[in-house]
Amino acid sequence: MTKIDNAIQDYYADDFAWCYGCGRLNEEGHHFRTGWDGEKTVTYYEPLEKHTAIPGFVYGGLIASFVDCHGTGSCALALYRKNGHEPGDEAEVPRFVTASLNVNFLKPTPQGKVLKAVGTVEEIHPKKYKVDVEVFADDVLCATGEVVGVVAPASFTGK
Amino acid sequence: MTKIDNAIQDYYADDFAWCYGCGRLNEEGHHFRTGWDGEKTVTYYEPLEKHTAIPGFVYGGLIASFVDCHGTGSCALALYRKNGHEPGDEAEVPRFVTASLNVNFLKPTPQGKVLKAVGTVEEIHPKKYKVDVEVFADDVLCATGEVVGVVAPASFTGK
Repeated sequence: MTKIDNAIQDYYADDFAWCYGCGRLNEEGHHFRTGWDGEKTVTYYEPLEKHTAIPGFVYGGLIASFVDCHGTGSCALALYRKNGHEPGDEAEVPRFVTASLNVNFLKPTPQGKVLKAVGTVEEIHPKKYKVDVEVFADDVLCATGEVVGVVAPASFTGK
Repeated sequence: MTKIDNAIQDYYADDFAWCYGCGRLNEEGHHFRTGWDGEKTVTYYEPLEKHTAIPGFVYGGLIASFVDCHGTGSCALALYRKNGHEPGDEAEVPRFVTASLNVNFLKPTPQGKVLKAVGTVEEIHPKKYKVDVEVFADDVLCATGEVVGVVAPASFTGK
């Protein structure tokens, strides 16, 4: 499986759906989509040819972006599930923003592969979640990361 | 000043100049350029409209990319200077890749501003440098980060 049927980003409120990484309304963005796989979260993405670090290998900033949006999406999935919901329910989906992002590049990530991010989510505060992330190319673990996400503050929307 | 006269990326070997973040030969990339400002390193970049997180604010993955290439460029500047060189000299420029990247998002980063990354570089091993990074929008510190860079391993070039 490399396709997410029911991604949390499909259900973000329109105001929150413009992210260059994962916003369905940002026509020029990456459109990362994150869903549940049992108790883990999963995002897939095949980097484009331009997303090069050194020829043949994926740009680290793209991998960081992938980890970032996988993380905030995973936080949203977890809080939504805690509240008794799954993507597709009518209840409003929470939107997290990134407080901190860490990525460890374990080995050069080859281009021309579908990357898979796998997340393990932990609540550390009712409005703050931590996601441990592993990034695979085929079955090779190329990077690990950690995202701390917080529920988007009111200052972000002006509301 | 928001222009780097003599950026290290201008002098990377052609094989190392395709990075989506900072490669001068990647026509679709960001073209981050990093130079000295006294003992600090500096990179400027004005995010594009598409680089949105939530409307009005810059995408965290773009900021992570900015920190990443600012970091590896700073490592290269520092090792080059240690060896007695400045950008523009004929000696081969070292090329670092990212071992780890950490970014702390202190506050939402407004769009429509030129961002400035300021780096403080420290040698932690002859082939491994650490860069502490501050990202400003105007004079407001919006994010901090840390990049650990290592001299590009032979596995990256196949040579």
